[in-house]
Amino acid sequence: MAERRLKFWGWGYEDQQLGEAEAAKVARFVAGRTGTTVHAYRAPPTLDEIRLTPPRIGAPAKLGALVSTSAYDRAAHCYGKSYPDYIRAFARDFSNAPDLVAFPENETDIIALLDWAGGANVAVIPFGAGSSVVGGIEPKVGHGFRATLSLDLRKLGRVREIDVTSRAARIEAGVYGPSLEAQLKSSGLTLRHFPQSFEFSTLGGWIATRSGGHFATLYTHIDELVESVRTVTPSGVMESRRLPGSGAGPSPDRLIIGSEGALGIIVEAWVKLQAKPRHRASQAFWFDDFYRAAEALRAVSQAGLYPSNARLVDGEECALAGIGEGKRHMVVLAFESADHAVEAWMARGIECLRDHGGAPAGSPKGGRDETADAWREAFIRGPFNREGVISHGIMHDTFETAITWERLHDFHAVVKSATERAIHVVTGRAGHVTCRFTHLYPDGPAPYFTYHASPTPGRELEQWQAIKMAASEALIAAGGTITHHHAVGRDHMPWYLKQRPALFGAALEAAKRALDPKGILNPGVLVPAPTA
Amino acid sequence: MAERRLKFWGWGYEDQQLGEAEAAKVARFVAGRTGTTVHAYRAPPTLDEIRLTPPRIGAPAKLGALVSTSAYDRAAHCYGKSYPDYIRAFARDFSNAPDLVAFPENETDIIALLDWAGGANVAVIPFGAGSSVVGGIEPKVGHGFRATLSLDLRKLGRVREIDVTSRAARIEAGVYGPSLEAQLKSSGLTLRHFPQSFEFSTLGGWIATRSGGHFATLYTHIDELVESVRTVTPSGVMESRRLPGSGAGPSPDRLIIGSEGALGIIVEAWVKLQAKPRHRASQAFWFDDFYRAAEALRAVSQAGLYPSNARLVDGEECALAGIGEGKRHMVVLAFESADHAVEAWMARGIECLRDHGGAPAGSPKGGRDETADAWREAFIRGPFNREGVISHGIMHDTFETAITWERLHDFHAVVKSATERAIHVVTGRAGHVTCRFTHLYPDGPAPYFTYHASPTPGRELEQWQAIKMAASEALIAAGGTITHHHAVGRDHMPWYLKQRPALFGAALEAAKRALDPKGILNPGVLVPAPTA
Repeated sequence: MAERRLKFWGWGYEDQQLGEAEAAKVARFVAGRTGTTVHAYRAPPTLDEIRLTPPRIGAPAKLGALVSTSAYDRAAHCYGKSYPDYIRAFARDFSNAPDLVAFPENETDIIALLDWAGGANVAVIPFGAGSSVVGGIEPKVGHGFRATLSLDLRKLGRVREIDVTSRAARIEAGVYGPSLEAQLKSSGLTLRHFPQSFEFSTLGGWIATRSGGHFATLYTHIDELVESVRTVTPSGVMESRRLPGSGAGPSPDRLIIGSEGALGIIVEAWVKLQAKPRHRASQAFWFDDFYRAAEALRAVSQAGLYPSNARLVDGEECALAGIGEGKRHMVVLAFESADHAVEAWMARGIECLRDHGGAPAGSPKGGRDETADAWREAFIRGPFNREGVISHGIMHDTFETAITWERLHDFHAVVKSATERAIHVVTGRAGHVTCRFTHLYPDGPAPYFTYHASPTPGRELEQWQAIKMAASEALIAAGGTITHHHAVGRDHMPWYLKQRPALFGAALEAAKRALDPKGILNPGVLVPAPTA
Repeated sequence: MAERRLKFWGWGYEDQQLGEAEAAKVARFVAGRTGTTVHAYRAPPTLDEIRLTPPRIGAPAKLGALVSTSAYDRAAHCYGKSYPDYIRAFARDFSNAPDLVAFPENETDIIALLDWAGGANVAVIPFGAGSSVVGGIEPKVGHGFRATLSLDLRKLGRVREIDVTSRAARIEAGVYGPSLEAQLKSSGLTLRHFPQSFEFSTLGGWIATRSGGHFATLYTHIDELVESVRTVTPSGVMESRRLPGSGAGPSPDRLIIGSEGALGIIVEAWVKLQAKPRHRASQAFWFDDFYRAAEALRAVSQAGLYPSNARLVDGEECALAGIGEGKRHMVVLAFESADHAVEAWMARGIECLRDHGGAPAGSPKGGRDETADAWREAFIRGPFNREGVISHGIMHDTFETAITWERLHDFHAVVKSATERAIHVVTGRAGHVTCRFTHLYPDGPAPYFTYHASPTPGRELEQWQAIKMAASEALIAAGGTITHHHAVGRDHMPWYLKQRPALFGAALEAAKRALDPKGILNPGVLVPAPTA
């Protein structure tokens, strides 16, 4: 039986493609809600339409078995899943495809590949499952390298050890989300880290990009779930000690977490597990005013209740998900526990929302909530539907950030209007910008913006770039972070350089020189490429 | 009115000294419980007994007003509060006193001082309040420097800005704990970070050493309370953006948090505040078996309840605190909230403890608990009593670590017996080693060991060193961290170098070269001093 293959140009498996009719239906629905224009269907690329330049280098014989130069493999390692990725894929432009794709089977293979690449001046792009939406895995490395190699970690896909007492597991970095959970299943434990990309992303990718899980509060970032991490660098292997806590100098793990493949290749980690939830409560609420809803969530976030879900979705984004008519804003509140009934937690959470004018939507049943479930379903379907929308010429992109509560009102207003203005100026047509909160902290939320626009056919890339620039400039000027959980990649570098302290940049660059002296790892990401 | 001065040789203010009679009483009590020997009282040093070598360098005229060479200031910046610090102070040995002590009043002063020190090859030791128990602030920098300067940040002692909406404050690094809380008071908010050193330590010191607060679980480390941090380095000033969360590359703050003055001088931070607790519940329990009590706490730690206190104190350590007769082990469980009644939390926590054989001790009253209060009182008195004990010739030291649950039993047994054996071999007499847990994580506890021994008078230093070495070797070999919240300093460097990944060491060293090119900041701490 043939292996189920991932699309080489988009989200999910080859058999998960929306047909033309379904794509049109989705696009018309979205256009109706966003006021954008549906263009003629553009079929996704097929492999025989793609022209790849011949590889500029061959793998040495002893590594040959690990390396592929097939058109599928090279095309499938060219792009992530961002809007400009889709546009270029739809344009059949795969000019940045890697020369080689390697599938190492173990750490020894990775060391050998890095040794060879360092000697041959080949840039190495660590690759998990390709869900980057920031150009993080595109082999676009400038002219300083002889060739590029995408290093795909999927064969390091095993859970190696489970410690049920401490609730932790040693897991190889290349494991996909579903396989990770399947391998943990017999232990009764779970990592319970469900970013939206869960099905098509890997543990190593989560660690490399500081992934945010589905929990709205508390231990949701992979940062807090890592107990120790093992990394192969061109200078050797480094592994931190497995510890529940330590105060011995700056955290070694925190240098690797978020390093986006620029410092080393994460091969394995000990991560913290938990028991499966047995108690759940969930309830959605409607608010007439977005900022009043935000105040309600501030109260929840500062109450020390730590809900598993506490998300605000603005009215227009609800409507886009098929929930409501766009006027009222939704807050979903949920608690879960593997240990104890959560009524007391939920009761107080509901009080916080009611105190700020929240009205219950639907009725909770069996611990779940219909409105909340509808949102969840739309959330998971989102990336598939997005392809249908884009294939019909609608621009669809998202960006996410974080800001402290006291700046939220102005921040939200400024970023939203700057994006709307940019869309109008750039495309000559009004766009549609919505916002939800994905994560909550006691000191502020993580707003996530989604926009739709009607680009001029053939000018999508430049128009997207102009809108991206305007939104990012506004966001950085207003004090936000250029990314809360989508990483920096190549797309966010200009604003990352403005955001991070310059001297931290110098320190990071020095650290990179120590770990990756020839600068072959994911060049241009986090540390600007030296100007040759 | 004269300013209340800190002792130049020990814990607290000059007026907080135990008299000879009181010291004897404490020492006899401790000796009775630990089987150690009380020697004749050794009076603490007075300033006129101390001989300091003349400063090897003078401050330039323009910085003269910031710099002191008084005997008191130089002596008071020589030592922290470790056992070997006391022994050398009692021996009237202040040979490592800094040549100069600077009291900058603002960031500009600090920049000027660093500029001058870099040009003059003067080592600079950042100094908060001198509570280090690991040699972190001792100007013992080898022969590579012309002189040493202790940089005392106490004049940067203001809360600059309070954001009651986001619950955060911008605070200067040199503020002592009590002053910090006093300045926050009118806002109704609190940092609620109470390390044992609270009275005599500073915000900057907490950040530089990854201080652990009094909360047993959840957000207790200063690491998690820092929103952004501002640092002066010899290469310039770096300040991170104030954000509730970010995924933009490795965290800049996490490089500075725990940097122990080796990368820069922390001058200011935004930290997360909280409302004052209004609801409290506390209850102590007795357990017949230490490991059964540990299992009970494992259950609590994995239940997702996040108690404010959940500490295990072994029987002998209870007895030392005047609680019980040494046979039974105490667990204190407490919850607090500013927002909601905590009965549901407490009820489930109590179930976890009862399920593992815990028996309630005393009876809760008014939300507090007598046994728990007795322990707290002993905890705060501890550092003062310690001076009495040491002044009567008893060796008293502590070390703390963290380990995952599945290794706890063997780890505890091995570390305890290695320390007991070392004491016996080194001093020829049985010692007394006790253990408590200071912090709990879902994947493991932070065991804190306390020991008493009877050193040979005059040989205390070498005997302490031999015991320290044996305990540290055992702890590192068994998989622990050399420090959970006491930092590395100079005392822990040999084991820190074994613990941290070598390549992380290389990266840290490279980062230090970028921020501190001349290596003048706290030389020998975290990054080994270059062998000249």
